[in-house]
Amino acid sequence: MPLDPRHARAILDAVDANFDAQLAFTQDLVRHPSLRNQESSAQDFLYEAMAARRLEMDRWELDPADLATYPGAGAVAVPYTDMTNVVGTYTPALEDLEREEGRSLILNGHVDVVPEGPLAEWSRSPWDAAIVDGWLYGRGSGDMKAGLAANLFAFDAVLAAGLVPQGRIHFQSVVEEECTGNGSLAALQRGYTADAVIIPEPEENMLVRANVGVIWFKVRVRGNPTHPREMTKGFNAIDAAHTVMARLRELERAWNAEKSSHRYFEDLEHPINFNLGGIQGGDWPSSVPAWCELDVRIALYPGMGADEAWGHIQECLGRIDQDELGNPISTAATRTGFYSEGYVLEEGSDAEEVLRTSHRAAFGEELQTFTTPGYLDGRVFALYAGIPALVYGPVSEAIHGYDERVELESVRRVTKSIALFIAEWCGVAEQAQLAGATSAGHGEAGL
Amino acid sequence: MPLDPRHARAILDAVDANFDAQLAFTQDLVRHPSLRNQESSAQDFLYEAMAARRLEMDRWELDPADLATYPGAGAVAVPYTDMTNVVGTYTPALEDLEREEGRSLILNGHVDVVPEGPLAEWSRSPWDAAIVDGWLYGRGSGDMKAGLAANLFAFDAVLAAGLVPQGRIHFQSVVEEECTGNGSLAALQRGYTADAVIIPEPEENMLVRANVGVIWFKVRVRGNPTHPREMTKGFNAIDAAHTVMARLRELERAWNAEKSSHRYFEDLEHPINFNLGGIQGGDWPSSVPAWCELDVRIALYPGMGADEAWGHIQECLGRIDQDELGNPISTAATRTGFYSEGYVLEEGSDAEEVLRTSHRAAFGEELQTFTTPGYLDGRVFALYAGIPALVYGPVSEAIHGYDERVELESVRRVTKSIALFIAEWCGVAEQAQLAGATSAGHGEAGL
Repeated sequence: MPLDPRHARAILDAVDANFDAQLAFTQDLVRHPSLRNQESSAQDFLYEAMAARRLEMDRWELDPADLATYPGAGAVAVPYTDMTNVVGTYTPALEDLEREEGRSLILNGHVDVVPEGPLAEWSRSPWDAAIVDGWLYGRGSGDMKAGLAANLFAFDAVLAAGLVPQGRIHFQSVVEEECTGNGSLAALQRGYTADAVIIPEPEENMLVRANVGVIWFKVRVRGNPTHPREMTKGFNAIDAAHTVMARLRELERAWNAEKSSHRYFEDLEHPINFNLGGIQGGDWPSSVPAWCELDVRIALYPGMGADEAWGHIQECLGRIDQDELGNPISTAATRTGFYSEGYVLEEGSDAEEVLRTSHRAAFGEELQTFTTPGYLDGRVFALYAGIPALVYGPVSEAIHGYDERVELESVRRVTKSIALFIAEWCGVAEQAQLAGATSAGHGEAGL
Repeated sequence: MPLDPRHARAILDAVDANFDAQLAFTQDLVRHPSLRNQESSAQDFLYEAMAARRLEMDRWELDPADLATYPGAGAVAVPYTDMTNVVGTYTPALEDLEREEGRSLILNGHVDVVPEGPLAEWSRSPWDAAIVDGWLYGRGSGDMKAGLAANLFAFDAVLAAGLVPQGRIHFQSVVEEECTGNGSLAALQRGYTADAVIIPEPEENMLVRANVGVIWFKVRVRGNPTHPREMTKGFNAIDAAHTVMARLRELERAWNAEKSSHRYFEDLEHPINFNLGGIQGGDWPSSVPAWCELDVRIALYPGMGADEAWGHIQECLGRIDQDELGNPISTAATRTGFYSEGYVLEEGSDAEEVLRTSHRAAFGEELQTFTTPGYLDGRVFALYAGIPALVYGPVSEAIHGYDERVELESVRRVTKSIALFIAEWCGVAEQAQLAGATSAGHGEAGL
């Protein structure tokens, strides 16, 4: 049912009216350095924010044993103690009124952020959440605390417009999106499903049509340590590791060369990125290094199973038996995180159509779709629950880099778009019509 | 004065007679895992062993501020708290007898050992000091605890032969030989000098004619971190570090190409080794690495100053302004340890001549000399005090590697050779002649 234009106008105005508060909230959230295994205070903050909106609260610790039963679960390389998901659920009070329930919705976002890297490279602290020239700075500002806040403030705007959503809504703040995807997986395992999901990742005001799967692994390369005085007797595991990475990049080249046969990836210059993200090797400057470990992130096209990709990696490494100088190389690869497949948002879904309408109203232009070569939790909903996954969010710069930032005007419009989506997707009733019929209180404006 | 053949025979027999005790002592010493900053218990052990021999004991903590006044001091990258040298001094009781004092001698060895590397690669614990088929195994067995023990047991053998050395002898157990050379430097700064020094490093029963200087440094390479989805915007500091190392290796090639103009290095296949001994880089598998650090050990010919070599390194790094793909590279190099020059043991010294005689008697063959492309504390004595430095010691395998070991028969003969050297270099009196003339007690056999 198309949204009443008066309702739409009221929602858009409500986002504007509360946008300063939304920004202040987002800044507060950015100030929690929710690096991996340090998400608790940010989750506390979001729990309180959801509880203040009278949502039904749920918070639980991720369970590696439960997760291990899912084929797409990532390897658990850190303790999951005190690593919690937070979900707040809005349920419309329908029983009293005998109205039809609207479509349900998950508004998902991840609270974990990637490491800030050397602080000296930042113009300011990654955690001071400064606003400069229309941008909010900070680690996680774009990826994706602006989105987490937008989810809540979009809901607030619907209520502030005097409207009551008629469908169930789950607000999810998950962990582990940057390393395993186990946070959203755990939420799905816990039973949270819906008719659609929006994930406001920083996507340049666009909707993600397709994305890659990602696998993380560590390759340990063994050498033969000696004193440098007899270097020719030993061989350098660091140099050998470079050879190993070069072989993996041959596989990367081969996969990129196939891009034309993968729908939605044909036009990307380099859809498959193998990232050598970390390296550690050697024990002593005057010993020829005995070992070197590479932290590698690879990508795979939708349609390729994680097991299949992992098999290709193992095969590639297995073929490496010597370095450029003919020294024997021994490698061992272990999974260290992501073990995910890519997904495609199939064209023609009702959810996408509603988002197109919302986006048009918020931005005054048509929604663009694109393919992203990065991991997205969207795959959890799309692949394992058949839920249309709308990954759609604001303009950012330097996510995972120095001086990460998100554009405020974009955040405002994305918030409007999500608010309109809530109203049209779930349906709304006017609070005035409901007055006196229920004391559920969901009709009150958020904070 | 040539050694009396009867005295020589008695000394050789004394080494044999006490060799089982020497091996047991060496095993005990190997069982102290005297890695850097963990030398204390081994130094306690040696202190007690020297004190039991009634040597005048001296033990002191290295002082980075004092060391910094020496041009050849290494950069101090770890705390020097509780990092001590141990020196035991034998002084002949000459005053009572109005005899002429013999030549003085330093018997030097280092107690620090390099890291053992991955334990899984060892056939047994690096610290169990097993003896198998004529070899003593363990980290530090060859480099150089067998030598430290040989110094003391050679002295014991002279006494056990009924002889009393007539020159002052300093037994030095120093730290920091594997990383800075600051242990021997500190001993020299403290005032310990002599007419010759023997350092029984594992040198294949040969005498070191020349060796290289060594410099340690760390190169930090900076990149521009991004999300892998936009890898082409960032650049990978780990890859850039590989480029940096390749440039340094061009300098290594150039220096090796000059070997014919460096006396004693002409015949070495590859006298100058630049070792990439360690690497660390990146913070997150899914972030293009922002930084990478290389731990590098370079070598320099004798005659080249450390400042000059360091200038060449800085110049080489300074010329690197982009990687293979044209991305800008920024590097910063800092010294992390050794800053030493090489030395040559000039031919024709009395000390070398005496060692030739001793070696011939112990091994039944002529002493060979050779050039070693590794660092030696000999440079401290040779360069800064003009003391003939005899670096000469047993056959070993895999020093700095797995299953390091030292050959026992070689240790026995080297001990004999050092014992004969003590007697001839310092001169000896017969205990019988001295009996009753002194109560100094130095004439008693060691333990």
